[in-house]
Amino acid sequence: MSERGDRVERRGRRRPPAAAAAEPVVERSRGYRHLTNPFAPLKVFSDDEVASIHAAALTILETQGMRVLLPEARRRYAAGGASVDEPSQMVRIDRGLVAQALATTPREFTLHARDPAWHLPIGGRNVVFAPTSGPPNIMDIKRGRRAGTFADFENLLRLSQSFDVLHSLGGCVEPQDVPIHVRHLETTRAMLLLTDKVPLVYARGAGQIADNFELIRIAYGLSEDEFRARAYVSCVINTNSPLQLDIPMADGIINFAAAGQPSIITPFTLAGAMAPVTVAGALTLAHAEALAGVVLAQIVRPGAPIIYGSFTSNVDMKSGSPAFGTPEYVKSSFGAGQLARHIGLPWRSSNATASNTPDAQAAYESQMSLWGALMGGCNFVLHAAGWLESGLSTSYEKFMLDIEMLQMFAEIFQPVGATTADLALDAVAEVGPSGHFFGCAHTMERYRTAFYAPLVSDWRNYGQWTEAGGLTATERAHQLWQEALAGYTAPARDPAVVEALDAFVARRKAEGGAPPVS
Amino acid sequence: MSERGDRVERRGRRRPPAAAAAEPVVERSRGYRHLTNPFAPLKVFSDDEVASIHAAALTILETQGMRVLLPEARRRYAAGGASVDEPSQMVRIDRGLVAQALATTPREFTLHARDPAWHLPIGGRNVVFAPTSGPPNIMDIKRGRRAGTFADFENLLRLSQSFDVLHSLGGCVEPQDVPIHVRHLETTRAMLLLTDKVPLVYARGAGQIADNFELIRIAYGLSEDEFRARAYVSCVINTNSPLQLDIPMADGIINFAAAGQPSIITPFTLAGAMAPVTVAGALTLAHAEALAGVVLAQIVRPGAPIIYGSFTSNVDMKSGSPAFGTPEYVKSSFGAGQLARHIGLPWRSSNATASNTPDAQAAYESQMSLWGALMGGCNFVLHAAGWLESGLSTSYEKFMLDIEMLQMFAEIFQPVGATTADLALDAVAEVGPSGHFFGCAHTMERYRTAFYAPLVSDWRNYGQWTEAGGLTATERAHQLWQEALAGYTAPARDPAVVEALDAFVARRKAEGGAPPVS
Repeated sequence: MSERGDRVERRGRRRPPAAAAAEPVVERSRGYRHLTNPFAPLKVFSDDEVASIHAAALTILETQGMRVLLPEARRRYAAGGASVDEPSQMVRIDRGLVAQALATTPREFTLHARDPAWHLPIGGRNVVFAPTSGPPNIMDIKRGRRAGTFADFENLLRLSQSFDVLHSLGGCVEPQDVPIHVRHLETTRAMLLLTDKVPLVYARGAGQIADNFELIRIAYGLSEDEFRARAYVSCVINTNSPLQLDIPMADGIINFAAAGQPSIITPFTLAGAMAPVTVAGALTLAHAEALAGVVLAQIVRPGAPIIYGSFTSNVDMKSGSPAFGTPEYVKSSFGAGQLARHIGLPWRSSNATASNTPDAQAAYESQMSLWGALMGGCNFVLHAAGWLESGLSTSYEKFMLDIEMLQMFAEIFQPVGATTADLALDAVAEVGPSGHFFGCAHTMERYRTAFYAPLVSDWRNYGQWTEAGGLTATERAHQLWQEALAGYTAPARDPAVVEALDAFVARRKAEGGAPPVS
Repeated sequence: MSERGDRVERRGRRRPPAAAAAEPVVERSRGYRHLTNPFAPLKVFSDDEVASIHAAALTILETQGMRVLLPEARRRYAAGGASVDEPSQMVRIDRGLVAQALATTPREFTLHARDPAWHLPIGGRNVVFAPTSGPPNIMDIKRGRRAGTFADFENLLRLSQSFDVLHSLGGCVEPQDVPIHVRHLETTRAMLLLTDKVPLVYARGAGQIADNFELIRIAYGLSEDEFRARAYVSCVINTNSPLQLDIPMADGIINFAAAGQPSIITPFTLAGAMAPVTVAGALTLAHAEALAGVVLAQIVRPGAPIIYGSFTSNVDMKSGSPAFGTPEYVKSSFGAGQLARHIGLPWRSSNATASNTPDAQAAYESQMSLWGALMGGCNFVLHAAGWLESGLSTSYEKFMLDIEMLQMFAEIFQPVGATTADLALDAVAEVGPSGHFFGCAHTMERYRTAFYAPLVSDWRNYGQWTEAGGLTATERAHQLWQEALAGYTAPARDPAVVEALDAFVARRKAEGGAPPVS
């Protein structure tokens, strides 16, 4: 006997039920709408070390502080009890103020969709996946790399709608053919019309944020008070590490908190470049910066929902190039998850890679990122599908490879039954020594839904695979995204709502839109 | 601010130290000789469920038993207290006998190499990686798929010697150009001459086993008693699931145990085909079969070292094709690790994929397998490098992709420092808001060894990568295995030992070798 896949075929006394009966498909559901993670989070620090890192971050905020570029934010910090030095724009925050902010930040909350089936519980053991957000370029393996367009943006929304394993939306790709002062109007309208899922928008100034909120209110038929009473949309806030909060980001924290909407406060800290070269040092700095953001949000509105974001990786110390999905990235993820739990906030991480093409490196770096996030206990995985080239490109094929990986994680989260029937002693007795389980009753009752049926993976034997063209996973992914787009159906929308959205967009365009703040 | 890799380069006020000083390399060691896993193993079963599965396996052995094809093995079982039915060849083992066997099986042991630096502690928190074993075919992306040759076998040994992250050897690929009755002589001699690492051989009958043991004794200068007193070589034993132990495998357990050498007893159970369609059912059956093998070994020689092997995956219920690195595979791994710890034995798992080519599927299925094994607490990962096509091919490029992944795991296992110096408050104070850490003292002291430097991964930006040819990871792996072979140096060997090995091989060939038993 040997450990080879041909053992099944060699023995071949029975065919599997579906093949024998020429049945078309297995029927396991891909309705991965609500995921909870059953595994105990992995740790890289002792509890004492976590407490030390938290304490060190508090020391940074007390003694050094953050440079905050937006005057309104410095005014808010000062009013809330922080120490502000106007000439240097430095804001120092004592640990009492941090503790007070953490006491009012919710441990869990719900992001609400139009359809309650797509409401997203954030925090606890819940896991939410959102597609990549922000790359300026789009790639596919036939047309290559080019500037993102609105057509690509819409395609990526359609793909996001097509797979239940994506729960929130993301910025997908920058539609560079849409002028930047009206881009938010077009992209948010598209999110609301082409998908059922919770939008994620950018914080590019109060004007754009107000427009985005108004579009959501129109689409969902909410009053301003109703909108402000519950969370409907998130945005990513990146500090300008080390220790600086720039104008659009501070503005975003303020306007999202004021409206009761969650900021995902994420210091983007590449160890060795904009953060210390040690994992613990980079995490300490990131933690301090995230806490500074939490404090601002809670000063603006105690109880404002926040997601604690981490994005700590390392650079190549030869070239300065960023790297993602590295061993240091994995360890940083486990550590960031520990810090998030230490302060009791929902935690966001990412699925990232530095590969320039959707190849084996892209797959193994993404897997490293995903295992780091998910076995670290992550609640919100941004860039979960499509990220490539250190975030400078979205790849259609990578999007499909990622969907496959996300669906596999969704399956890993499902419980393993261990009832008497699951242990199958009767089936073992029925089949007997060196027999085959394809046809036994235990199998017949379960085979349709027993296993995950893959999307991209090809399990045919070498001969069959070769005859079918010998395509790589990336080449199959190319076919699959086109098939998914062809099979997309837009969700039904009330024509009056569409008309109202269109009218608002038209009016705001006529008014000049809202140029991004910088 | 955004989450994109160009943020480092855009800022660009400083270059990283190596780039600034034109220093050639970073210097982090790749001497991953002894790995220990710091993470608490992940679980899919409660402790009660584990106990239930163990009890159900005992019931199978008591009431149904194993069909054992080798008369000598049935005689040994009977002499040891099992109930043997000669007409049906069924051996029934009561739970007392299993408990007695488990009581004498060591929880940990050491596989000894010629050089103590390459001794391998097996069990506990130790992790050992061994390359793939057994595929009949070899692949590389230029020459395609073809029958394995002795030249390929030697190449794969040279590659195994070249990377410290491989600790044990494996069968690599079947050298089909060497007649099967003398193949073991050539392959084992090559292992002993081309590498410093612990051999792994096949159990293909007592004659071949005796030859292999003799070659090792000659190479290491050991008396027969010295050889039998310590573990030097392992072999894989696969039951013929369900519930059958065939002739060479029973013979292997007996001869390895008698010599005090470890068998890796591994039921190869594909759920839905040769095992029940449920994960728990497949694991219960596999556990029963492994226990039957442990009992035979301990009857032969109480205290004989054993590695509890698991290889439970699922088949595609549409086609019957085997699948590896699936969600069910991951959950089976976590469960098998729990069963191994329940009975206190070292645990072996695998790095497997069903992909027919070293592509993104091969990478993500292998990562799934590796995370399942390693976060399940695995001690011995076979097929850790090179496995492709459900074990029907070894791929040179996959070998290198796997080495990269194994090295990344070796790094993930390294502790994250959390001393005051690691937390880097002084560096943060030195650099200040929106500064750069490339040049600060904290970085300068650490950058050479701060991060893992990749083997296959390419972190250059898109322009540099394109200018350099735009190679995929698989194409780079193709260059890398050739470079590694070019850089290989054979370990020094005493000419008298080489002569003695050659003389033994020549004599045994002249005597007709040892045809495999079946």
